[in-house]
Amino acid sequence: VNDQELLALHRELVATPSVSRAEGPICALLEERLAACGLAPRRHGRNLWALAGEGPILCLNSHLDTVPPSGAWTRDPFAASREDGRVFGLGANDAKASVAAMIAAFARLRARAAALGIALLLTLACDEETGGEGTEVLLPELARRGLCPRAALIGEPTGLELAIAQKGMLVLELARDAKACHAAHARALGVENPIRALARDLVALDAVDLGPVDPWLGEATIEPTVLAGGAVRNMVPERASCVLDVRTNPAPGHATIVERLRAAAGPGLRVVSQRLGPCATGTESAIVRAAQRARPEARLFGSRGVSDWVYFGAVPAVKVGPGLSERSHTADEFVLEREIVDGARFYEAAAVAFAELAREEGAHASTLGAR
Amino acid sequence: VNDQELLALHRELVATPSVSRAEGPICALLEERLAACGLAPRRHGRNLWALAGEGPILCLNSHLDTVPPSGAWTRDPFAASREDGRVFGLGANDAKASVAAMIAAFARLRARAAALGIALLLTLACDEETGGEGTEVLLPELARRGLCPRAALIGEPTGLELAIAQKGMLVLELARDAKACHAAHARALGVENPIRALARDLVALDAVDLGPVDPWLGEATIEPTVLAGGAVRNMVPERASCVLDVRTNPAPGHATIVERLRAAAGPGLRVVSQRLGPCATGTESAIVRAAQRARPEARLFGSRGVSDWVYFGAVPAVKVGPGLSERSHTADEFVLEREIVDGARFYEAAAVAFAELAREEGAHASTLGAR
Repeated sequence: VNDQELLALHRELVATPSVSRAEGPICALLEERLAACGLAPRRHGRNLWALAGEGPILCLNSHLDTVPPSGAWTRDPFAASREDGRVFGLGANDAKASVAAMIAAFARLRARAAALGIALLLTLACDEETGGEGTEVLLPELARRGLCPRAALIGEPTGLELAIAQKGMLVLELARDAKACHAAHARALGVENPIRALARDLVALDAVDLGPVDPWLGEATIEPTVLAGGAVRNMVPERASCVLDVRTNPAPGHATIVERLRAAAGPGLRVVSQRLGPCATGTESAIVRAAQRARPEARLFGSRGVSDWVYFGAVPAVKVGPGLSERSHTADEFVLEREIVDGARFYEAAAVAFAELAREEGAHASTLGAR
Repeated sequence: VNDQELLALHRELVATPSVSRAEGPICALLEERLAACGLAPRRHGRNLWALAGEGPILCLNSHLDTVPPSGAWTRDPFAASREDGRVFGLGANDAKASVAAMIAAFARLRARAAALGIALLLTLACDEETGGEGTEVLLPELARRGLCPRAALIGEPTGLELAIAQKGMLVLELARDAKACHAAHARALGVENPIRALARDLVALDAVDLGPVDPWLGEATIEPTVLAGGAVRNMVPERASCVLDVRTNPAPGHATIVERLRAAAGPGLRVVSQRLGPCATGTESAIVRAAQRARPEARLFGSRGVSDWVYFGAVPAVKVGPGLSERSHTADEFVLEREIVDGARFYEAAAVAFAELAREEGAHASTLGAR
């Protein structure tokens, strides 16, 4: 796979619509392309995976799906048009640039993988934007087959900077119920207005300690996002509610945060989703050092955006890929061709460096064991 | 108009649908019935009026329209079915009982009005439930014709108790705007969450002094009723808003209340409606004394519900009529036939007493003038 073939594959991916839950066609396309290169792709639902080499497994993970195109697009979101070294299209940046670059790196390393002493596991998942049947389903399936990654690179647009921490996301709903009544009579009837009660709860939440500032991720945050209650101007409603979007740090855990918020807001606080936990990889970890060896100028950072990293549990991982996060989910999304080419080189070099570090660690461990 | 004719007219009114804005058919029906009795009805839009006698004008005002039937009705809302002395139907209680009773009283007094030395002005209005082209349009039209009431009875179901004060209604909207952004990035971008700001505003409003407790109306109250903001779970919305239903007392005025609320909540407070002011009539007023003379056992009270009284400005008025307020706007609304009959007698006696008091006051004024 040379650079021209890589870029042609990327455009083909962009031209194939793959909004979450509708990744069938892009899976079929990739299955054919990967098989043609002898990469032995396997399907699991709307996920695709391939394995090469033997040894500690380095997983290259990215996602095939995109958000739906917004009405603000001025171009055909599926034209994959080139202009001044840019490729425009839905998902061009998030994350089809990473997908194409990872495929190229995988193809280029496949023959060498055995010699490197590691196994490369390529996992291209569906439903990343929505949650569903993607990485969260594929990894347990691979584990059942004995394929458990030693480390992972998560392909998302980071400008090839290295995200070694990622905030968790906790979705809560705060609600207050009452007996609906005419607004003129509420006071006389002793009805506690649920909107007033909710407002007090929301203010009370501001005082809750969400834990220490994380060196990579900063403060944990809580943002009310969807507020609702009542429809009739002269009626006290029977319910007022607010969705809370909480972005969490590795400490304290989600359960502790929920407990503290509930102590402040009362029993009207309901957990909608708490499974997207925070992620962090130590700087001494082999995968971080390998990524730094592959790109010494790369900056380490903490990322506020959720990705499929959350499904990797304790596996040391780095989120890194071509393109820029701020272009994701925007109209007229694009990626630079240069970024894709650099991305493929980076993944290749990082895998080689990981293999070297794995060998060094193995040797060191043997030495220690021999004492 | 004997009691049987009165009750037959009431059932005919109930059987004629007259949801606000659709009072044409009931106006046509009444025009025919009143003309047949020689009452010389006049139309103005979807309002009906009639005049009898000469002298200080006593206005008998009620409304022809109803709210729409809710889905909770177990009966045909327009069947006007009788059962155990009750008449069931939409508007049977609010306010077709008052309408029928006022028509009967007007018809019974018409011939005597000249002898009594007062004029009776019957005004049956549209759009009371919604505001629109009813009493607020009819009274200025009558004023242009030189017909300015000296006093008024407002026909609404009060169980024939005497409402001598009525709360005003002020509708406000409190809103906060922001630049919409991803919830994960709001803190870093320095975006102030409009929901959080709105919650603080709502709590701040609780501390605002809405004025002294009124002896008849109690406290002024403020109830948040319609809360809205955001639609996407992980986005800080660009706007959060809440409708406020404020029920006011004669003091302080609406402008003062808005000023105090704005001082607490800031410029995001917008006046939606402030024209429905509070009403009050002194107990020494002739119309109050006349109503008490007609029904000595009647209780004086302050009413929290808005009515067309608000359009009578400084005209001394009492809100009083057959039926009960708590049956209004409910499924299977009904009124007792006994209540309607008593209502007609009451209106008749109150008008006679008002004429007597007007004569006494006139004599007294002449005496004073002759000193």
